[in-house]
Amino acid sequence: MPGSTFGTLFRVSTWGESHGPALGCVIDGCPAGLTLNEELIQPYLDRRKPGTSAMTTARSEADKVRILSGVFEGRTTGTPISLMIENTSQISKDYGNLSDTFRPGHADYGFYAKYGHRDYRGGGRSSGRETAARVAAGAVAALILENYGIRLRAYTTAIGPVALSDGLADKLSLDEISALSTNAACMPDEDSAAAALKAVEAARAECDSLGGIVECRIEGVPAGIGEPVFDKLDAMLGHALFSIGAVKAVEIGDGIKAAAAKGSENNDRMRMKDGAVSFDTNHAGGILGGISNGNTILARAYFKPTPSIYQPQDTVNEKGEDVSLTIKGRHDPVVVPRAVVVVEAMCAITLLDLYLQNRNSRI
Amino acid sequence: MPGSTFGTLFRVSTWGESHGPALGCVIDGCPAGLTLNEELIQPYLDRRKPGTSAMTTARSEADKVRILSGVFEGRTTGTPISLMIENTSQISKDYGNLSDTFRPGHADYGFYAKYGHRDYRGGGRSSGRETAARVAAGAVAALILENYGIRLRAYTTAIGPVALSDGLADKLSLDEISALSTNAACMPDEDSAAAALKAVEAARAECDSLGGIVECRIEGVPAGIGEPVFDKLDAMLGHALFSIGAVKAVEIGDGIKAAAAKGSENNDRMRMKDGAVSFDTNHAGGILGGISNGNTILARAYFKPTPSIYQPQDTVNEKGEDVSLTIKGRHDPVVVPRAVVVVEAMCAITLLDLYLQNRNSRI
Amino acid sequence: MPGSTFGTLFRVSTWGESHGPALGCVIDGCPAGLTLNEELIQPYLDRRKPGTSAMTTARSEADKVRILSGVFEGRTTGTPISLMIENTSQISKDYGNLSDTFRPGHADYGFYAKYGHRDYRGGGRSSGRETAARVAAGAVAALILENYGIRLRAYTTAIGPVALSDGLADKLSLDEISALSTNAACMPDEDSAAAALKAVEAARAECDSLGGIVECRIEGVPAGIGEPVFDKLDAMLGHALFSIGAVKAVEIGDGIKAAAAKGSENNDRMRMKDGAVSFDTNHAGGILGGISNGNTILARAYFKPTPSIYQPQDTVNEKGEDVSLTIKGRHDPVVVPRAVVVVEAMCAITLLDLYLQNRNSRI
Amino acid sequence: MPGSTFGTLFRVSTWGESHGPALGCVIDGCPAGLTLNEELIQPYLDRRKPGTSAMTTARSEADKVRILSGVFEGRTTGTPISLMIENTSQISKDYGNLSDTFRPGHADYGFYAKYGHRDYRGGGRSSGRETAARVAAGAVAALILENYGIRLRAYTTAIGPVALSDGLADKLSLDEISALSTNAACMPDEDSAAAALKAVEAARAECDSLGGIVECRIEGVPAGIGEPVFDKLDAMLGHALFSIGAVKAVEIGDGIKAAAAKGSENNDRMRMKDGAVSFDTNHAGGILGGISNGNTILARAYFKPTPSIYQPQDTVNEKGEDVSLTIKGRHDPVVVPRAVVVVEAMCAITLLDLYLQNRNSRI
Repeated sequence: MPGSTFGTLFRVSTWGESHGPALGCVIDGCPAGLTLNEELIQPYLDRRKPGTSAMTTARSEADKVRILSGVFEGRTTGTPISLMIENTSQISKDYGNLSDTFRPGHADYGFYAKYGHRDYRGGGRSSGRETAARVAAGAVAALILENYGIRLRAYTTAIGPVALSDGLADKLSLDEISALSTNAACMPDEDSAAAALKAVEAARAECDSLGGIVECRIEGVPAGIGEPVFDKLDAMLGHALFSIGAVKAVEIGDGIKAAAAKGSENNDRMRMKDGAVSFDTNHAGGILGGISNGNTILARAYFKPTPSIYQPQDTVNEKGEDVSLTIKGRHDPVVVPRAVVVVEAMCAITLLDLYLQNRNSRI
Repeated sequence: MPGSTFGTLFRVSTWGESHGPALGCVIDGCPAGLTLNEELIQPYLDRRKPGTSAMTTARSEADKVRILSGVFEGRTTGTPISLMIENTSQISKDYGNLSDTFRPGHADYGFYAKYGHRDYRGGGRSSGRETAARVAAGAVAALILENYGIRLRAYTTAIGPVALSDGLADKLSLDEISALSTNAACMPDEDSAAAALKAVEAARAECDSLGGIVECRIEGVPAGIGEPVFDKLDAMLGHALFSIGAVKAVEIGDGIKAAAAKGSENNDRMRMKDGAVSFDTNHAGGILGGISNGNTILARAYFKPTPSIYQPQDTVNEKGEDVSLTIKGRHDPVVVPRAVVVVEAMCAITLLDLYLQNRNSRI
Repeated sequence: MPGSTFGTLFRVSTWGESHGPALGCVIDGCPAGLTLNEELIQPYLDRRKPGTSAMTTARSEADKVRILSGVFEGRTTGTPISLMIENTSQISKDYGNLSDTFRPGHADYGFYAKYGHRDYRGGGRSSGRETAARVAAGAVAALILENYGIRLRAYTTAIGPVALSDGLADKLSLDEISALSTNAACMPDEDSAAAALKAVEAARAECDSLGGIVECRIEGVPAGIGEPVFDKLDAMLGHALFSIGAVKAVEIGDGIKAAAAKGSENNDRMRMKDGAVSFDTNHAGGILGGISNGNTILARAYFKPTPSIYQPQDTVNEKGEDVSLTIKGRHDPVVVPRAVVVVEAMCAITLLDLYLQNRNSRI
Repeated sequence: MPGSTFGTLFRVSTWGESHGPALGCVIDGCPAGLTLNEELIQPYLDRRKPGTSAMTTARSEADKVRILSGVFEGRTTGTPISLMIENTSQISKDYGNLSDTFRPGHADYGFYAKYGHRDYRGGGRSSGRETAARVAAGAVAALILENYGIRLRAYTTAIGPVALSDGLADKLSLDEISALSTNAACMPDEDSAAAALKAVEAARAECDSLGGIVECRIEGVPAGIGEPVFDKLDAMLGHALFSIGAVKAVEIGDGIKAAAAKGSENNDRMRMKDGAVSFDTNHAGGILGGISNGNTILARAYFKPTPSIYQPQDTVNEKGEDVSLTIKGRHDPVVVPRAVVVVEAMCAITLLDLYLQNRNSRI
C-alpha cells in the first residue's frame, strides 16, 4: 500500500498535499560527504515554479526549500535528509461542487473509490504540486551524479502541434541545451518556443489545453548500470516517468520507431575508439538488455493535455448523479514546461539508485 | 543489486540461465485457497514455447513446469510456490567467438562491464528463455484474478510493417480475441496474420529480423487499483513491460497520441449507467492519476527487431579488438508472437500485486 | 543503506538529529478513515518527554507534534502522514572535545568509521531523541489497533537492582497497569517505584548510571498474525526492539527460562472455552512458530545502563590519540522510564504492519 | 505477506515443505566472481543433517545440495543462485489425527487460523527442515565473508541443565572451537558434551525434551557495519535469530546481564594499540548504537525444548473439540546441536547483507 517511496538504496519518500501546510520528502541513503545546502537545491525548484510565464498558472508559490536534517557543516552525514517546502498560496476559497464532483481526466474518482475519503482541495495528494518534492530530491541526486561524472538535462521537444525539428537536439551539447532552453517552453530553439507559446495562447483562448513531449539526455554513464531482470535501467526509468501524473507513453532511444525497423537497421555497431568501446549509432538510447552500454541515454515522456479546462463537461458526483461541471481557479494550459525538471529529477533519482546498486556487482 | 524479484505482496523471483540445468521462479505471497496444479499453468507456457511455427526458432523445448512447493491437496497453502522448468535442449556446441565477442544489440557488453564474468551460452541470464518463468508465475496471477472477476488477454497488433487495422481489436470481445489469435502471429485477424507471416519470411530470407507491437486488454478491474504516487498502476505496468528484454516503448490508452490531443478531446466524460459510473470514451486506457477508473485497461509494448541476425556485423571483443561477427544457431526472426503471453503474464502479476495492496486502503 | 524505514505496509520513516531544527517521521500506508489529530498523538509524546522527573535529564523540550499531511477534516486520507516535532532546547554551547573524541559505550566511533563525517552535537542521529518520532508513529499505530480490538501497554519491570516481584504484573489488567505506572519509574507498583528512585539517586550521586527491563503486553491479537518464515511475529518484534539504541537482549514469553525447561513444562496446552481456543498457560508469550496463537503477547527488552556517566573515562579521538574524557551536559541516569513508551510504540508499529499483511493470507 | 525473503542486497528466499518433493532457496544479489560449487556448500549442510547422533531424529536425509543457476565455470555470475535439496525420506504414512489436530507448542493452530488450509505432513512449511535452505545460503554468505577477512562460528553453550563453564569459550580461538565442537552436542568441551548427552538420554527416556543455548562469534568485522536507525546490526541479528523457529530470546554481548550493570562497569574503554582502536573489555558484544565497533561480535540464541514429546497432551482439533494427542514418528529430543549451523548461517547472511550495504555509506 505505501506507494510514496521510490528507490532501493537512494530512497525518496514524498509527502504532502496541494493545500496542506507544507510538502516535502525524506531522502534515505544519500552517501555521506556531499556538499549540500539550500542554495544548491533551490535553482531546480525555481525551474518548476508556477507563475513565471504565460504558459503557467498564476498561482504564485515561493517554493523555498528548507533542509531539516542530514546535513552538518555543509556536508551530508549519510543520515536521512528531510526537505520541506511550505505552501504559502493556498487561497482560502469555496471549492463549491469540487468537493463532491469528480473532474473528468483527473484522479478524483479513483481516489474516492480507493479511500472513500479525499482531500479535494486542489487535487490534494494527486496535485502536480507533489512533484516539487521530487524535484528537490532530484537536485540532490543530480549533485551526487556530477561527482561520478554523470550529467543530465531534460527539455521540451513538443507542445501540442509544435515539435522541434527532427535531430535538432542531438546536434546540441548539454550546455547548449541548458542555455537555449530558458524560454517559457523549455525548448532549445527560439522559433519553436515562440510557435509553442502561440499554440498555448490559442488553446487558452478556446478554454482548452495542450500536451507535449519531454526528452531527457544523460551523459557519462558507464557501461554496466541496471539490474537484470526486473530492475533494468529502462524498466526503472519507465517506472519513474510513468509515475509522473500526466505521462501516457515512455520511449527509450528510438522507442516506437524501433518496432517498425529491421534488425540490420536497429543494431548499433561497436568499434574501439581511443581504447574505449564506441557506437556508430544510438538507436538503443544507451540501454541494451536493461543495462547501460556507455552510450548517451535518451528517454522520452509523453504528456497528455491538462485535464482542467474551462469548458462545461459532463461528469458525475459522489451521490451518483449526472452533473455538468465547469472548472474555475488557476490551471496551467499545458504542464509540459514545468514538467521538464520533474522528468530530469526522476531520471537523476533512478540513475543514482542503480549506480549505487552496481557498486556491489562484484566481490 | 537484487533485480530478479518483482512485486510487493505477490512477489515473483525468477532464476536460471538459458543453458543451465533448469530455470524457474518462486512466488511468495500467493493467497491460500487457490485451486492450482501443473495442468492449469502449462497452457500458458505452451503459448510461449519455441518451435511451434515458422516465426520461431527451431529449438525444441518441452517447457514442462513442475510445482515443487506451496500447493497441498490441489490448493495453494499461502507459502512460497516454487516452479521449475528443466532445460532439455541445450545443444552441446562450440560457442566459438561468442564466448568473448559482444553481439550488437544484445546485453553481452553490459553484462561483461557489470560483472566481469558471464555465462555467454545462449545469452545466459539475459536470454529470452528467462521469461518462461515469468509466464508460469503470470499463469498463477491470472488464475487468482479470475476469482476476483478480472480477465486479461494480450495479442499482437503489428509485426514489422504489417499492422492490424485501427480499431479492429476494440470491436472484439476477449473471448473472440482468444479464439482468433491462435495463428502463428497471435493476431486476432487472419489476413493480417498471413501478411505478417510473409513479412517475417521475407526478412528471414534477407538474414534480417522484425519487431512489432503487443497490446494487452484487462477487463473487470474495479476503480481504485494503483498506489499513489510512485506505484501508480501505469507506473508499475511501465516497469513490468520495460523489464521484458526487447521493449523500447510503452503506452497506456491513447499513449503517444494523447500528447498531440487537446484537453477537450482527451478527457473521458463520465455518466451514470445502471447505477455505475461509465465513460463515453477511453482515451485514458482505464487509468487516471495512476489509479484504475473502472474502464477497460489498455497497455501496449513496442518490441525492437531481434538483434541476432545472420549478417556479418562490426563489433568488438573482450580483448578490446575490432572484429566482424556472423551469428549462427537458432534465433527467432521476430520475438513478438512468443512475447505476447509474456506481456500478458507481466500485466497479470502487476495487477494482482496492486489489487492485493488495495485491500489495505481503508481501515 | 537506507535503514531509517521500518515496516512493509504500515511503513514508518524517521528523520532528524538531536540538535537540528526539527525531527519527525513520515508514515506511509496508514489506512484511510482513522480519526486523527495532534491531541490524540501528544499524550504518547508526553510520556517520553524529558525533564519530568528526577530520573530524567533536565533538558526541557515541549515535544509538540504537528501533522503536516495525510489528514483531512479530522480523518486520515490514506496518503503519507508527515509528523514534525521542532527542537526548541538545543543549548548553543561549546561541544569541546566531544567534536573529535569518541564517548565510550556510544555510537560515536561507529558513525565516524562508517560515514567519515558526523554530527557530534548530542549524538546527532544516534541520540535517543530520534525515538520521539517513533513514539508519534506508534501512537497512530496504537489508535488503529484499537479499532481492531487490540490494546497494548508497556511498563518497567526492573531498574538496576530493583525488580517487580515475579508475577505481579500478570495479575493486573492493562487498565490497572496504566493507572499504576504513572510514577517516575513507570512501574505498576508504588513500592518498587520508590525503591527504583532511590537506586537511581544513589547511582547519580556516584556519577554512575543504571539499566533496566521493559515489558510490553498486547491483548486482543487474533490467532494468525505473523509471516512465515523470516517475518515471524517474534522476529519482527525482535527487530523492532533491538532497533532501540540501548537494548541488549529481547525475550518473548518465558524467554531465556524456556531454554532450561523441559518440553512437558514449556508446552501450553489448549482447550475449548466458550467456543474459542484457550490456553492453560502462556510460556510461549502468545507466539508459536512465529504466528500469534490468540494468547496474550508478552515481549521484554533489556536496556543497558546509560553510557554517558560523569566519571573520567579512557578513550581515543579522531586523531588516533589516547585521551581521558569527562562528559558534561544533561544526561538521564537511566533511560528506562522514558524508553517504556518507545517499546510500546515499536510493538504497536510491528503488530499493525503484520496485521495488515495478514489481510492477504487468503484468496 | 511474503515473509520468505531475508536481506536487502544479499537476498535469500527459501521455499519448500518438509514432505514435498524438494526444498531450496534463491540467492539474489550474490556478487560476481566468487568461487563456488556444491562441494563448498555441502559441509555446512552435513553439520545440520539428521540421523547423525543420539541427539537427533532417526530420519535419514542425504540433504545433497544442487546448484541450478548463477554459477558458470566455477564462479558466481552475479545472477540468482538457485539451490535445491531433494526430500528423499518422506515416509509414506498415515498422519492420523495430526491432519486435523493441533500439536501443543507448534505452529499448527497459527497456520490453520491464518491460511485455513495447511500441509500438516511433518509440519509442512513450519518444519525445521526449512532451515536446510538457510544453511545452504549461509554457506555462500560465509564464503564471501571470508574474502573480506571475516570469519564466524557458532557452538552450543548449554543443553538443558548442562552449561559450558563461564568464560570457557572466550579463551578458545575460532579454530579451536571448530576442532572441539565436532561432538554430538556441538559443545567445545568434551566433558560438557558428555554430560549433555546424558541429559538428553534421560529426557528421551521420560518421553520429554530439552532446550539450550547457541552462541555465535564473529571475528574480523570492521567498524562501521550496521544501518541506523532501524537496520542496526543487532536489530538485524535479532530479526535473523528470532526467525529460527524455536528461539525465545536473543542476546548481544552481555545481554540480559547488562540491564543489571552500572554504566561504569558496562562501558568498554578504548585505547590505541598498534595504530588501531582496541577495547579492554567486550560487554557490548562488538556493537554500539547498532554499528560494529571493530570488536568481536557475540550473539546468543535461546532455544525452547522440542515441543514434540511422546506424552499424551491436551489439545483441540479443527472441529473445535477437546482431544488428547500422543505424537508418534521421529523427533529430535533437542534441536540445539542441529540448530548451531542454522544460527551461524543466519548470522553470516545478516552480516554480509549489512557489509554490502555499507559500501555505499560514503560518496
